[in-house]
Amino acid sequence: MTEATTLASMIETPLITLLTDFGLQDEYVGVMKGVIAGISPETKVVDISHQVDPQDIVHGAFLLSVSYAYFPSGSIHVTVVDPGVGGDRRILAVDCDGHFFVAPDNGILQLILDDRPVDHVVHVTNSRFFLNQVSRTFHGRDIFAPVAAHLAKGLPLTVLGPAVDRSLLATGVVPRCRFLSDGCLEGVVVAVDRFGNLMTNISESTIGQLMEQERAGNLVVELDGKSIGGLVATYDQAPLKAPLAIVGSRSYIEISVNCGNAQQALNAGKGSRVSVRVR
Amino acid sequence: MTEATTLASMIETPLITLLTDFGLQDEYVGVMKGVIAGISPETKVVDISHQVDPQDIVHGAFLLSVSYAYFPSGSIHVTVVDPGVGGDRRILAVDCDGHFFVAPDNGILQLILDDRPVDHVVHVTNSRFFLNQVSRTFHGRDIFAPVAAHLAKGLPLTVLGPAVDRSLLATGVVPRCRFLSDGCLEGVVVAVDRFGNLMTNISESTIGQLMEQERAGNLVVELDGKSIGGLVATYDQAPLKAPLAIVGSRSYIEISVNCGNAQQALNAGKGSRVSVRVR
Amino acid sequence: MTEATTLASMIETPLITLLTDFGLQDEYVGVMKGVIAGISPETKVVDISHQVDPQDIVHGAFLLSVSYAYFPSGSIHVTVVDPGVGGDRRILAVDCDGHFFVAPDNGILQLILDDRPVDHVVHVTNSRFFLNQVSRTFHGRDIFAPVAAHLAKGLPLTVLGPAVDRSLLATGVVPRCRFLSDGCLEGVVVAVDRFGNLMTNISESTIGQLMEQERAGNLVVELDGKSIGGLVATYDQAPLKAPLAIVGSRSYIEISVNCGNAQQALNAGKGSRVSVRVR
Repeated sequence: MTEATTLASMIETPLITLLTDFGLQDEYVGVMKGVIAGISPETKVVDISHQVDPQDIVHGAFLLSVSYAYFPSGSIHVTVVDPGVGGDRRILAVDCDGHFFVAPDNGILQLILDDRPVDHVVHVTNSRFFLNQVSRTFHGRDIFAPVAAHLAKGLPLTVLGPAVDRSLLATGVVPRCRFLSDGCLEGVVVAVDRFGNLMTNISESTIGQLMEQERAGNLVVELDGKSIGGLVATYDQAPLKAPLAIVGSRSYIEISVNCGNAQQALNAGKGSRVSVRVR
Repeated sequence: MTEATTLASMIETPLITLLTDFGLQDEYVGVMKGVIAGISPETKVVDISHQVDPQDIVHGAFLLSVSYAYFPSGSIHVTVVDPGVGGDRRILAVDCDGHFFVAPDNGILQLILDDRPVDHVVHVTNSRFFLNQVSRTFHGRDIFAPVAAHLAKGLPLTVLGPAVDRSLLATGVVPRCRFLSDGCLEGVVVAVDRFGNLMTNISESTIGQLMEQERAGNLVVELDGKSIGGLVATYDQAPLKAPLAIVGSRSYIEISVNCGNAQQALNAGKGSRVSVRVR
Repeated sequence: MTEATTLASMIETPLITLLTDFGLQDEYVGVMKGVIAGISPETKVVDISHQVDPQDIVHGAFLLSVSYAYFPSGSIHVTVVDPGVGGDRRILAVDCDGHFFVAPDNGILQLILDDRPVDHVVHVTNSRFFLNQVSRTFHGRDIFAPVAAHLAKGLPLTVLGPAVDRSLLATGVVPRCRFLSDGCLEGVVVAVDRFGNLMTNISESTIGQLMEQERAGNLVVELDGKSIGGLVATYDQAPLKAPLAIVGSRSYIEISVNCGNAQQALNAGKGSRVSVRVR
């Protein structure tokens, strides 16, 4: 191998993404990047968000599921929303859909694991790839960051620990939308964005199923039992300041207010019930 | 070309800056960086700010105009404050003052286009450089990010779409300061920083014009009709907790309070009127 | 030197960290990164935090002291919490513990300088390494960023200015914990993190000293005169929603509430008194 190709391989290490509930006021995220840089200096680190609502696994799970595929294949996605840190929850490393994921086994990977072809899931136990001192309260720094950096340098996933039977993984944590007996599709608001848009867990493809199952008719979306009307294609199809339902950029139904803030105007938020039916 | 020079050119791709109103709580900014990394892995991306006040084109225009020149020549500045997303507003790519700009045609480039020598303005229409799926609500991810990444890789601007006549561009959106008939210079507060300093649209060079036009005398700065006094050279030339006017680091007049928060102490903010006269 | 080794050295420049009170809403931090990229394009810049409480030197000093060692040796740590900007406070560049620090001489380096072996301290005066125009209010952009970038490119520290006698440096700014005559260890809350955890200035090693000095017994931690109990090893050793004291991930005592927010539940914050005694 020539020096130049060594350089090329250095430059082309996969990138690492970070998604946490650590916020940006403290030094937590910076320190994780310091640890990564010490192990794999050439690796690019990209923040997905550090403002997952504190300890909100559902929020983190949705942000991860709608983000990861926009990163290059081979990226390593580190997700630390970890109320069980220091307890006996497992840490997982997963090879799935051409991407790697490192996260606690608390349901935050549920949307990835349920819906995608999974190649490997290992229980991260090989402390050779942790920091020498592992604290009880900051595994982001002491375990997640160094493990991800070693993966970025090419460490095979299977070296990190034993394979885990998928049936043993945390599940049922993230609410999925479901069809009720009357043909109605019921979901829930799982995230509210900066603009007050309400993101639901009802995906465009599930709406497709609903349309196939039911007789032709008009879709009606309801929020906490009140009608929002049908699906619009653009915000400006609704009157100014009127609520609307739209398939958002994440391919999930979102409830918005045209030129307004739906969270405030509709007095809704995470956990608000959303239903879609054909009339 | 040797492998080493190829590497050199890889390393030296221009950087991309991002300036948006997306905030940092959601995954929007991270996903844009993922798209860029997929197209141009070696490109460095620097955040200018993602906390432009939502949909505030004026705020974004000023942040961009006072920032871009501190980046290396050839940098690509992506600015997405885009209330018209999904409608028929144009997306522009501009070659100006040795820098590139990609932004909606909604006035956010006005300060750049009005005051600098512009080499090229094109209407970005060539969807070959967009993501395959273009949503109606997130052009930052689907158009702005990939277009910028292709520019960083060396794509000529003119390939992105047809040239646009500058007379057809959005204008008049960003308030400029102006001389009134009585020789007074009138402006407005366009941004408030973290410390509560009030940044106006009255530049140091306009003050120079005022001084040339008027007889020698003392400058008096007024905020919403109340005198702030003359221009000071340093904060500590004003008494503790007293308001003051100063040419800030951005070469615009700012109104501050010595060791205090002007926004709160003076009950002022964006849109507050500012005037400067010679007495 | 071959082209490839030149490239290798380009890639391996030390990284620069930034720790400021500039916040992220304005363009300040982005512009500093632009200046660095113009001087040393290949240098990686990592944010420690930009949300030091405005002008809070103590907060900044602690964040720096608990962060820097997680970055690779040779990193350059730029810390700008600088209420004296534009006045006659010195700017320091320090070579200490295998790292470089650039910061105002206002006490923010006190924990570094007091407790670590210091190789060099220079007063940064060589304006050849500043931006051509130095404003009175934004030395982060005009002095700190370019000086750090030149250090990253290999500039010897001593070229930046004359050595400074350590006895002349700002000191006594950052409160240290101390032993009272009755053997009690007294400290103070110096930072509150996103989760409401109260970080004190009482380090694990000082607790070790306390244990050696006093007869065997149980440690009791008090916050503002009220007992929190002894030190626990994990959060879940305290009842749900109960306050607890723990050696946090930074090796300082922190006061938390199990699955709660200590700042709110205990009505405490920066400056709250903390004591530890053996009973």
